Amino acid sequence: MKVRLHDQFWQPKVRQTVQETIPYQWKALNDEIEGAEPSHAIENLRITAGEKTGAFYGMVFQDSDVAKWIEAAAYSLRHSPDPGLEGVIDAVVDLMKRAQQPDGYLNTYFTVAAPEQRWHDFAFGHELYCAGHLMEAAVAYFEATQKRTFLDMMCRYADYIDRVIGPDPDKMRVYCGHEEIELALVKLYRITNELRYLNLSRYFVEERGKQPSFLKEDPGFGAPSKDRWFELDYHQAHDPVREQHTAEGHAVRAMYLYSAMADLAKACGDETLTEALRKLWHHVTSKRMYITGGLGSQGHGERFTIDYDLPNDTAYTETCASIGLVMWAFRMLQLETDSRYGDVMERVLYNGMLSGMSLDGTRYFYVNPLEVHPAVTQYRHDMQHVKTERVPWFGCACCPPNLARILTSLDTYFFTQNGTTVMMHLYASNESTFDVQGKRLILHTDTRYPWDGEIRVGLELDEAVSCTLSFRVPSWCRTPRITVNGETLDLSAITEHGYAQINRQWMNQDEILLHFAMAAERIESNPKVHENAGKVALQYGPLVYCLEQADNGPDLTDICLPVNAEFEAGYRDDILGGIVVLSGQGLRSDPSWKDELYRPVIREDRSVSVLAVPYAYWGNREPGEMTVWIRSK
Amino acid sequence: MKVRLHDQFWQPKVRQTVQETIPYQWKALNDEIEGAEPSHAIENLRITAGEKTGAFYGMVFQDSDVAKWIEAAAYSLRHSPDPGLEGVIDAVVDLMKRAQQPDGYLNTYFTVAAPEQRWHDFAFGHELYCAGHLMEAAVAYFEATQKRTFLDMMCRYADYIDRVIGPDPDKMRVYCGHEEIELALVKLYRITNELRYLNLSRYFVEERGKQPSFLKEDPGFGAPSKDRWFELDYHQAHDPVREQHTAEGHAVRAMYLYSAMADLAKACGDETLTEALRKLWHHVTSKRMYITGGLGSQGHGERFTIDYDLPNDTAYTETCASIGLVMWAFRMLQLETDSRYGDVMERVLYNGMLSGMSLDGTRYFYVNPLEVHPAVTQYRHDMQHVKTERVPWFGCACCPPNLARILTSLDTYFFTQNGTTVMMHLYASNESTFDVQGKRLILHTDTRYPWDGEIRVGLELDEAVSCTLSFRVPSWCRTPRITVNGETLDLSAITEHGYAQINRQWMNQDEILLHFAMAAERIESNPKVHENAGKVALQYGPLVYCLEQADNGPDLTDICLPVNAEFEAGYRDDILGGIVVLSGQGLRSDPSWKDELYRPVIREDRSVSVLAVPYAYWGNREPGEMTVWIRSK
Repeated sequence: MKVRLHDQFWQPKVRQTVQETIPYQWKALNDEIEGAEPSHAIENLRITAGEKTGAFYGMVFQDSDVAKWIEAAAYSLRHSPDPGLEGVIDAVVDLMKRAQQPDGYLNTYFTVAAPEQRWHDFAFGHELYCAGHLMEAAVAYFEATQKRTFLDMMCRYADYIDRVIGPDPDKMRVYCGHEEIELALVKLYRITNELRYLNLSRYFVEERGKQPSFLKEDPGFGAPSKDRWFELDYHQAHDPVREQHTAEGHAVRAMYLYSAMADLAKACGDETLTEALRKLWHHVTSKRMYITGGLGSQGHGERFTIDYDLPNDTAYTETCASIGLVMWAFRMLQLETDSRYGDVMERVLYNGMLSGMSLDGTRYFYVNPLEVHPAVTQYRHDMQHVKTERVPWFGCACCPPNLARILTSLDTYFFTQNGTTVMMHLYASNESTFDVQGKRLILHTDTRYPWDGEIRVGLELDEAVSCTLSFRVPSWCRTPRITVNGETLDLSAITEHGYAQINRQWMNQDEILLHFAMAAERIESNPKVHENAGKVALQYGPLVYCLEQADNGPDLTDICLPVNAEFEAGYRDDILGGIVVLSGQGLRSDPSWKDELYRPVIREDRSVSVLAVPYAYWGNREPGEMTVWIRSK
Repeated sequence: MKVRLHDQFWQPKVRQTVQETIPYQWKALNDEIEGAEPSHAIENLRITAGEKTGAFYGMVFQDSDVAKWIEAAAYSLRHSPDPGLEGVIDAVVDLMKRAQQPDGYLNTYFTVAAPEQRWHDFAFGHELYCAGHLMEAAVAYFEATQKRTFLDMMCRYADYIDRVIGPDPDKMRVYCGHEEIELALVKLYRITNELRYLNLSRYFVEERGKQPSFLKEDPGFGAPSKDRWFELDYHQAHDPVREQHTAEGHAVRAMYLYSAMADLAKACGDETLTEALRKLWHHVTSKRMYITGGLGSQGHGERFTIDYDLPNDTAYTETCASIGLVMWAFRMLQLETDSRYGDVMERVLYNGMLSGMSLDGTRYFYVNPLEVHPAVTQYRHDMQHVKTERVPWFGCACCPPNLARILTSLDTYFFTQNGTTVMMHLYASNESTFDVQGKRLILHTDTRYPWDGEIRVGLELDEAVSCTLSFRVPSWCRTPRITVNGETLDLSAITEHGYAQINRQWMNQDEILLHFAMAAERIESNPKVHENAGKVALQYGPLVYCLEQADNGPDLTDICLPVNAEFEAGYRDDILGGIVVLSGQGLRSDPSWKDELYRPVIREDRSVSVLAVPYAYWGNREPGEMTVWIRSK
């Protein structure tokens, strides 16, 4: 399968990531961005390699920023070859090789700053987490270039880990507080066919949560665990994974664990893991997910809290958790075709993930709130984790390179193929080539998605091909219609689990038209979500919208949408580089308010124009208020 | 002036405070309440007196709990003589006398636990704060019993403080981080006529906020001041007091400062202080006061935040801040007759202050939130300061004895007299005796207030008296009407600054009827209060109402009051010991919600009965949700 995006929406972002973000982040890793928090990540490697003197600086998991950057750059090389960039990566890989220890260990913090602490702090040390990101990077770089150096280094590292950690009596029976190596080892297994890597991943996942937990004795666990938001459930270590039916703890950790479980379920054909994942999926998406696809309701512990607790202004909704949800959703689609997964993947991609990056690709949100009042947000102690404007870099810089790697690999999330079934999960103009039982199938997809739900898929075949083309019917579409060569299909007859399955002998130049009509729609929350009571969010196709002060003035909470207000969608090329805006009439309180706090109710609302923009685009103009949920009556 | 309350509302609470709360709190101070956090306050005194061994335990300001308890008990002796209680107080005073140091200093923490730290930590040491509370207690006890021992002890203490602190070059030029001694010294001055005490108070107030601030060099200031919510403004030390036009910092500290400023304005005839207070009053009440009269929007720093930031679920609204606001309001009324002050005093007394105590007088709220969802409140890190049920005592137990002292002195807040003008600020059945130019005036007030706004004031005179009787016309009353001997007065002609001034020659058995009709009313917030957008609060007379889960089921945010819904007020003796409830019809979302988080809007609200109870009474039945602000459309 080979997918080449050439659409109006994503491809410019991918190109920008390749042309701007990856070079920018390379500078950031080298501390060359003025005004940004220093990274020191490359310098840490030089110090570890003995080529520079100085002290380690940064988070214990600083290496993972380099790893994710290489992974992103490697993905970009697949579709955007760049010998200069490849040379830079080769040089970093060489530097890493010199920093790798004789036994295969590679970690700048524990080598330079705390050598005596190696394998001591599994709860918060992030050693295996960093190893996992390095492995993912090595696999990606090998796949992009077929160069083995980095991959071999990481196999050495994995071999070393496999020698010292595991269920055997002479090994440490531990796992990492922050999941990541589990899914990385499955990737390493897939590329090397080395079953030991799969088994080690399986060990990590199955050991997790067994009681009594080794973490309780872990030196790193002590201090934070007195804080109840950092207990075992923070690490998804409160129960064996198959007995976890609710999503708990640190949201990114959880997403990486569930992704690894899905990988193992597929690699091992383990239905018990799939069954556990279905329950977790249902729980997350029906109790603890923001409408933007954001996850994590509390800054303290960057974590899930309790069911239906989804505060908009103090949300954590970390960009990395959104990325993790995309990863998990796509892996679920590899286990079973169900639009529940595809719909959420689309929701988070277009909203809670994309909001993490500025339009120009150089500024980031770590936290993606659904409501911001800058003066309050900046003042209040309980909102200090929320930034009201994107910033150029973070001391804890997990999100920017994570965004880069998902954008440069976005093409891999559009399709899956299972024998003679080709499934299309996401919609954007692209040209994609498949091998169906030895025959070449090329799909030419053209669409203005997400600004328009009309999608044309033209087939290019060397000869007739019998296969099923399966298209996700988006749950937001009220009147989906599909034609093949002008003939309308009976969707109720062919739709299974939200996918329209068109099975026939396809001919060259067959044409499929997907009519997924988009319209401005009001969405309401379950009444158990106290924060959203009496409010609606505006959606248009896959996009969640928001109000910004730039368009609607201050005090956005004062705006109310009458029940009968029509919202019109219209493309505006003068706003935010060209977007579909939703516009209509709303109400604001009467202007007679004076310098008083409370008064008997006076009902003299006045009509005002209201303009909503896609949530992912907020914060790209002058700073101001923003809200996703709007009062309604 | 002598006021004897005998009403249905307050008098039982005062009696309960005398009969239950004061004995209960005495036990608490002696660590005899099972399940309550220990106090150790009396034991600290014994250790300080050298009569027990052991370590100091408690907050640095633990002494103030004893002081406030004595003050409360002393007030109670005025109207409820009790030789047994008086004996207990005498014994404590004797114990204190033995604990007092030869130089007059009296503080258990700094004598027992940190003698070398005496006068070292003005920011957070609370030494002068504790001294102030002891002085207030001594004045109250002298006024109640004419016994001088305690008063003399405190004069010795004040003399000592005056010797070591002040503007002279040989003294420490400092003031206390927590205001309190300032107002206490004015009381001490009033009772002793010792001008030095007034001057010392004036020094404390006028020194405050001068820059550069000595606090910046204060050893106690260092650590917390790195936290910006504990900077100079936390202590109201950011500007000289006359230049402070916005209420900043720790809410209780602010209220005690403003009270002291009002005392000094009156004692010194200082109009510059009054003018500063008017600005502060306007700021607090038009920008930063909850509808309950609660103050302090943030738990971290127990403080004011920014204008219009009034979150209901994370509110701090400390009971002591409410009490402080009552104190300040009453002092403003002593400076100028204006119902702005009386209205707020009434608001806070009946709502944000009274909510601090359970109906049975033995359980307390420190924090008085306006919205509680127990599961969320108990889970969330940013709500850990909020208790969902009242508790028997606190490690930091400032509030319970503070409530006791204001309830036992409540009679003193009803009237002020200025020459031949007698002003009635609060309404409750009482019998009050005044001396008007040597003639005795007795007012017999009868009312069911706050359940009913009909107030009868009968005059008992030995001979005709020419004077002005002035009655606050509550701002919540839409149709106030006053008759004298059956004749209706023209209120517009006689009302000044919200007080109906009836000036005439009064005869024995004259009868004044105040008809302050009460009705259920919806109140809305300034649109700049984001938290309350689209919501209303229900008021009835001086009472703010709330919804409780006990009456309305869970998910109170789901309830919406249609714009045309009528609310009926009715007395119900079967609820909460007898209260006026407000009942009407509201809407809840349709019951078709399944296990889903979001869906396109369906408008099928169903009608439900809604019952509201006075906010001050919430949390006296089974634990559950509560909200003051209710959605409206």
